[in-house]
Amino acid sequence: MEWIGRALEKLREKKPLVHNITNYVVMNTTANALLAIGASPVIAHAIEELEDMIALADALVINIGTLDEHKIYSMLKAVEIAKNLKKPVILDPVGAGATKLRTKTSLMLLEVGDISVVRGNFGEMAALLGEQGKTRGVDSLTYDKEAAKDLAKAVAKEFGVIAAVTGAIDYVSDGRRTYAIENGTPMLGRVTGTGCMTTAIIGAFLAVEEPLKASVAGLTTFEIAAEKAFEESPYPGSFHVKLYDWLYRIDGEVIKERAKVREVEP
Amino acid sequence: MEWIGRALEKLREKKPLVHNITNYVVMNTTANALLAIGASPVIAHAIEELEDMIALADALVINIGTLDEHKIYSMLKAVEIAKNLKKPVILDPVGAGATKLRTKTSLMLLEVGDISVVRGNFGEMAALLGEQGKTRGVDSLTYDKEAAKDLAKAVAKEFGVIAAVTGAIDYVSDGRRTYAIENGTPMLGRVTGTGCMTTAIIGAFLAVEEPLKASVAGLTTFEIAAEKAFEESPYPGSFHVKLYDWLYRIDGEVIKERAKVREVEP
Amino acid sequence: MEWIGRALEKLREKKPLVHNITNYVVMNTTANALLAIGASPVIAHAIEELEDMIALADALVINIGTLDEHKIYSMLKAVEIAKNLKKPVILDPVGAGATKLRTKTSLMLLEVGDISVVRGNFGEMAALLGEQGKTRGVDSLTYDKEAAKDLAKAVAKEFGVIAAVTGAIDYVSDGRRTYAIENGTPMLGRVTGTGCMTTAIIGAFLAVEEPLKASVAGLTTFEIAAEKAFEESPYPGSFHVKLYDWLYRIDGEVIKERAKVREVEP
Repeated sequence: MEWIGRALEKLREKKPLVHNITNYVVMNTTANALLAIGASPVIAHAIEELEDMIALADALVINIGTLDEHKIYSMLKAVEIAKNLKKPVILDPVGAGATKLRTKTSLMLLEVGDISVVRGNFGEMAALLGEQGKTRGVDSLTYDKEAAKDLAKAVAKEFGVIAAVTGAIDYVSDGRRTYAIENGTPMLGRVTGTGCMTTAIIGAFLAVEEPLKASVAGLTTFEIAAEKAFEESPYPGSFHVKLYDWLYRIDGEVIKERAKVREVEP
Repeated sequence: MEWIGRALEKLREKKPLVHNITNYVVMNTTANALLAIGASPVIAHAIEELEDMIALADALVINIGTLDEHKIYSMLKAVEIAKNLKKPVILDPVGAGATKLRTKTSLMLLEVGDISVVRGNFGEMAALLGEQGKTRGVDSLTYDKEAAKDLAKAVAKEFGVIAAVTGAIDYVSDGRRTYAIENGTPMLGRVTGTGCMTTAIIGAFLAVEEPLKASVAGLTTFEIAAEKAFEESPYPGSFHVKLYDWLYRIDGEVIKERAKVREVEP
Repeated sequence: MEWIGRALEKLREKKPLVHNITNYVVMNTTANALLAIGASPVIAHAIEELEDMIALADALVINIGTLDEHKIYSMLKAVEIAKNLKKPVILDPVGAGATKLRTKTSLMLLEVGDISVVRGNFGEMAALLGEQGKTRGVDSLTYDKEAAKDLAKAVAKEFGVIAAVTGAIDYVSDGRRTYAIENGTPMLGRVTGTGCMTTAIIGAFLAVEEPLKASVAGLTTFEIAAEKAFEESPYPGSFHVKLYDWLYRIDGEVIKERAKVREVEP
């Protein structure tokens, strides 16, 4: 897994501008995660400035966590602009399956945009394929290793994207090749927006790698940082703080030592 | 006060979904406080998804900290839906008394909804009874033990709610029975949104206890966690971090040891 | 530089109400920075309550970090009200130069309002004078000591304000007198919203000092707090936490020991 460390070095050298249209809950923490790892975040959703901002950006992150009609319109417009400007886009369908609005909005974005990567939990990703009732608020009600792997493949095929289904084991698939990542800690579930941070971190890697590799690198790097943070602080407040410390401190050595990534298919 | 520890255990077992329509300043910290204690938070205000989301929720938290006309409409709609679905609702009238808009919005919510609990500081709660000029920004300009107790009773009677007036001593009343809670630390005043967190934590307890008990349990648990945090870190940044740690670590033993709750009336 | 310590004492005694119309990314951290130093923050943008809130406030902070048309209208209205009520206003033109919307909005605010202080990085401040292309997202693409000094003077003269151009060395000018401040740490660049915090802290000093002194005092105090925080924690998550601790702990002694402020002109 030495390529992940090298991808991280490339990211830090490039310091990519990552444009986020994201939810209000995680704006601050997303920006801090991106700064800590070495990217340059911008959070902006005004219709009038999307064209200017996306032109400057190296990647676009769309996160539907707190919707309203202006924001939905802004997201649709943004993915269209990104398509025209050939900028990579990652979508986080937060809470898809919990409400019809979220499922519908995610599907519209997938239709209108040229999305490179979709990252979500089991319930959210299942909802994109029409399976409702597996999301409660923004949490998945279900998770099963075998099903998660198949779900990643199915979402990838259905929408022509890289699909990352995160959970106890993460599965990343382009519909043909599928990778499993077993890093991380359950403490991530006790801090809000850690899923959203993962998405944004993958967004930063999209500026330096093709989407499948960017997804594997982003998830692995983020989750190893979380492992290190948890070893220093087993409680959620302190863990959260150390997570930024480790997004800053992590390097190829630590990744090589810790990465539990394997190709499970074909 | 052993029942408070038991209520906390019930909360952690149930992991209630707490739906928050809250202000932008505290969205992240509210979600983290709820996650730390063991609840499952969701922050959502799109009109189109309120029905779906409230149907899933165990309790609804309404916090008027940053208003605009869309949000007011969304809050009014939400309390109506919660009334129909018989979901418990807690209202935090942030800054009532500082501006007419905030006082008026709080009163509308109390009229339209079936609010279980209202939690505010002295100035905010006094404003609900028509006494203006006791709030400066979002802080109370005045506090007096005896007056606070009477205010809790009066608000409870006027609106048919459980009223929690927080300050140096907190008073919780249903209009007849009144409890005083003397836990906490002044350092809570140096971190933004700690009042809002208290409200959200009471919201989580509303999923497992009737409103009067939920209010006493929420305030006591939160304020003891704050005491423990302050003992570890007497400065606001570190204190804030430790507060989440202790919302996670606190248990029946710590509560039993520390709780300063007494029935003051009748 | 003993006057800075005295200004800080005055600030803490007065506990000024600082009204912020700011971006969603930094609302929480701005409020916490203001609370830590000893001010009383309020974040509010509803048109309907601006008049009431600004009447109560000791200073107004306008930060254009996340715009939309409602917010622009609210900001324009707010600076008009502040002008009528003779309340000091500080403007943070976040991202000016990156998009036309941001540059244009900043210029409108300068035209409509009676702005006391403008604080921005090199790219943002240059954009106010018509030089585009020096901002990438919310970061400056360029910085040069000599140019920064001249830029501060030029912005001050052009708009009749105190201009603070922050960077490796900060320059504060009224167009005639110019001060250089060499405190701070590059780690500030790894935490989102530290520029916005600086602006808000200057806002708090505006309640107790005239604008030139308030700007010098705010920048110096904030950046020395950052130095102390960095000495305790060289990683961004922990540094961020310690920054609030030191905004609370800093006093005249520490400032006297550390301040690197000098008048460079005339």
